[in-house]
Amino acid sequence: MPNITVDLPQDSYKIAIAPDSLSQLGAMMQQLNLGKKVVVISNPEIFGHYGATCIESLETAGFETCSHLIPAGEEYKHLQSIQKVYDTALVNHLERSSTFVALGGGVIGDMTGFSAATWLRGVNFVQVPTSLLAIVDASVGGKTGVNHPQGKNLIGAFYQPKLVAIDPTLLKTLLPREFRAGMAEVIKYGVIWDKDLFTKLEHHPHLDTLENVGDELLETIITRSCQAKADVVGQDEKESGIRAILNYGHTIGHAVESLTNYKQFVHGEAVAIGMVAAGKIAVTMGLWTQEEADRQDALIAKTGLPTDIPSEIAIEDILETIKSDKKVKAGKVRFILPTSIGKVTITDTVTPEIIKQAMKPYGRGLGKS
Amino acid sequence: MPNITVDLPQDSYKIAIAPDSLSQLGAMMQQLNLGKKVVVISNPEIFGHYGATCIESLETAGFETCSHLIPAGEEYKHLQSIQKVYDTALVNHLERSSTFVALGGGVIGDMTGFSAATWLRGVNFVQVPTSLLAIVDASVGGKTGVNHPQGKNLIGAFYQPKLVAIDPTLLKTLLPREFRAGMAEVIKYGVIWDKDLFTKLEHHPHLDTLENVGDELLETIITRSCQAKADVVGQDEKESGIRAILNYGHTIGHAVESLTNYKQFVHGEAVAIGMVAAGKIAVTMGLWTQEEADRQDALIAKTGLPTDIPSEIAIEDILETIKSDKKVKAGKVRFILPTSIGKVTITDTVTPEIIKQAMKPYGRGLGKS
Ligand SMILES: NC(=O)c1ccc[n+]([C@@H]2O[C@H](COP(=O)([O-])OP(=O)(O)OC[C@H]3O[C@@H](n4cnc5c(N)ncnc54)[C@H](O)[C@@H]3O)[C@@H](O)[C@H]2O)c1
Ligand SMILES: NC(=O)c1ccc[n+]([C@@H]2O[C@H](COP(=O)([O-])OP(=O)(O)OC[C@H]3O[C@@H](n4cnc5c(N)ncnc54)[C@H](O)[C@@H]3O)[C@@H](O)[C@H]2O)c1
Ligand SMILES: [Zn+2]
Ligand SMILES: [Zn+2]
Repeated sequence: MPNITVDLPQDSYKIAIAPDSLSQLGAMMQQLNLGKKVVVISNPEIFGHYGATCIESLETAGFETCSHLIPAGEEYKHLQSIQKVYDTALVNHLERSSTFVALGGGVIGDMTGFSAATWLRGVNFVQVPTSLLAIVDASVGGKTGVNHPQGKNLIGAFYQPKLVAIDPTLLKTLLPREFRAGMAEVIKYGVIWDKDLFTKLEHHPHLDTLENVGDELLETIITRSCQAKADVVGQDEKESGIRAILNYGHTIGHAVESLTNYKQFVHGEAVAIGMVAAGKIAVTMGLWTQEEADRQDALIAKTGLPTDIPSEIAIEDILETIKSDKKVKAGKVRFILPTSIGKVTITDTVTPEIIKQAMKPYGRGLGKS
Repeated sequence: MPNITVDLPQDSYKIAIAPDSLSQLGAMMQQLNLGKKVVVISNPEIFGHYGATCIESLETAGFETCSHLIPAGEEYKHLQSIQKVYDTALVNHLERSSTFVALGGGVIGDMTGFSAATWLRGVNFVQVPTSLLAIVDASVGGKTGVNHPQGKNLIGAFYQPKLVAIDPTLLKTLLPREFRAGMAEVIKYGVIWDKDLFTKLEHHPHLDTLENVGDELLETIITRSCQAKADVVGQDEKESGIRAILNYGHTIGHAVESLTNYKQFVHGEAVAIGMVAAGKIAVTMGLWTQEEADRQDALIAKTGLPTDIPSEIAIEDILETIKSDKKVKAGKVRFILPTSIGKVTITDTVTPEIIKQAMKPYGRGLGKS
């Protein structure tokens, strides 16, 4: 598998993709001119699987290591967890030249990045993503942060890693549900950026498990997705323009996550629901064809991802929630909407009425409201 | 008074210096293409003096304003205060294009900057420094942050303001003790960078109060100090090299602050003590002449600043404390030491023995240890 470079004005870095490469992490990091001390930040389960290999690789390469574990789960992605990372950093005398390594999914990656961004005003940061979602999305691009009790990722910083080291074999211990969640972001790249990736996914018979995807398609998925993300981030590091397209499916997705208290869905599932919703809005506005929207929805369904907003959630609550979304600009909610597979547009002309009309359950209440 | 530009690769900005300019803040900010919403962050006393003028100026220029007050004092410079800023930002629906204005001294400036750096991964930030220390030092250069229970400024980020708006007339309500504390940083610029500023200060009869300094020297002090800081920061935004010279007097200064629980000294007083100590170390190492060190110490004393480490503090505690200083690199404590007035060197060759020898109280224990 090839390497990918994320090209940025100040902090370009490499995405190294290779099976069984975790044991090479120390050697890869040796090339980067980092300080001697490393803290590996992970959660107990992931560290149980891969901690020893990771630490051994670092020690062999001459690094002094320590580790810090955060309980698994989005509900620990808050400022109090970061404070405990600071305490570990203090006790272990980590210095400005030291490195924080994230060994985990997006939750660990986002928190490790934010800790690295804010400890001593910035120490080195390396991503070792272990979930598919983190591999294809969260580990690349420098968005770091934690949740506020009232909203996801409201607290954070842009802070780029020095290296993203991807070992696809780590995915073998990932739960199928989490694998599918990552596939939601992969499908996202197909819809917003890479038509060819989209059709490759369409032509593959089953996408619901790692085994059914298979090594060859997995390689394509990872490299194409990382390349798409690197392309977009390289054009717009701080999301002042085109980078916003990566939020496709996320406006309503975040609202669904928030309204179900982050309990019912994992992130990728909510994004899947959000993409289906965004597709409907695009069709309602005449921006996208029903036929292509159906193809997107079929791909999402084939992956075993949810497509519908749970019926308990009132559309009014969705509308209220998206108003406090980070992507709000001058009070207007910004939507990313497909215009054809591989292409999207960014718009703030989506009114609450359009959303309501697009979301109206088919066959129910027709002609009545 | 002239404007100064802080020249940076990505985020250059202006330091506007003019008496009675607080009422022009809104107009100045209008030039910057910022969003409509502004939160003014301050403390009750400062906001009592200048809040109305500030808010009125912003409203007149068409901004929608709200305010957030943090109790005065270094003891509130912690993560919990930042969490409350986040809550205010959330309740008032501040957006990525919104602006956080710091109206206050270094404590308010550092916390406002850190909040701005980390809310929604970065919103606009404007500094309106009200203490002399904040005017000549803290408001320029983009260092933001809060204290960890175990150490000053351990948590933070580099985050540049869009504008530093200095109105020297705000200093009239500053306590003389705080004025003198700011003078410590001014003397610092003289020693490390600007010999001419140093001699101007030497030739002025009294430096202990705003009145005794007078308008003309005050203008020189502010412009020269901001220029010095802008020069250094422009060469090294993230403190990978020369910027470290701005920490002259701060290594031992921070230790003294920390060992007295941030209660006995204000920051500038501790820096004054630290500069005297660093001068002694430089003389002990043969880097600086006793005569120039005496001139520095005389200037500090003339300003009414403390020069000695309190006798209750054991030198061993100082040594222990500086080991956990942020400026530690590969376990070695880095010192900034003068070589002549206007010039310093950065060194990590200062051993505990040298420090002990330099700090030995004159006339006591001589010939015994
Ligand atoms: N920074 C970004 O650009 C970005 C982008 C997308 C998502 N995110 C964030 O990422 C988070 C979601 O990431 P995620 O889906 O990876 O969630 P996650 O980190 O919670 O991981 C999901 C679950 O899988 C487990 N897991 C991960 N890797 C494993 C492995 N190899 N073997 C066994 N178990 C493993 C984790 O312990 C966890 O229980 C959200 O907080 C989201 O906000 C960030
Ligand atoms: N970011 C940087 O580069 C940098 C540089 C130096 C210091 N600092 C930080 O700055 C802080 C010290 O700053 P400071 O000395 O301004 O302390 P401060 O902000 O606590 O202000 C000192 C006191 O003066 C009061 N005050 C300020 N302006 C006033 C005015 N115009 N009228 C009446 N009262 C006024 C404040 O309420 C406070 O009680 C420390 O936390 C230090 O770490 C940061
Ligand atoms: Zn996502
Ligand atoms: Zn200082």
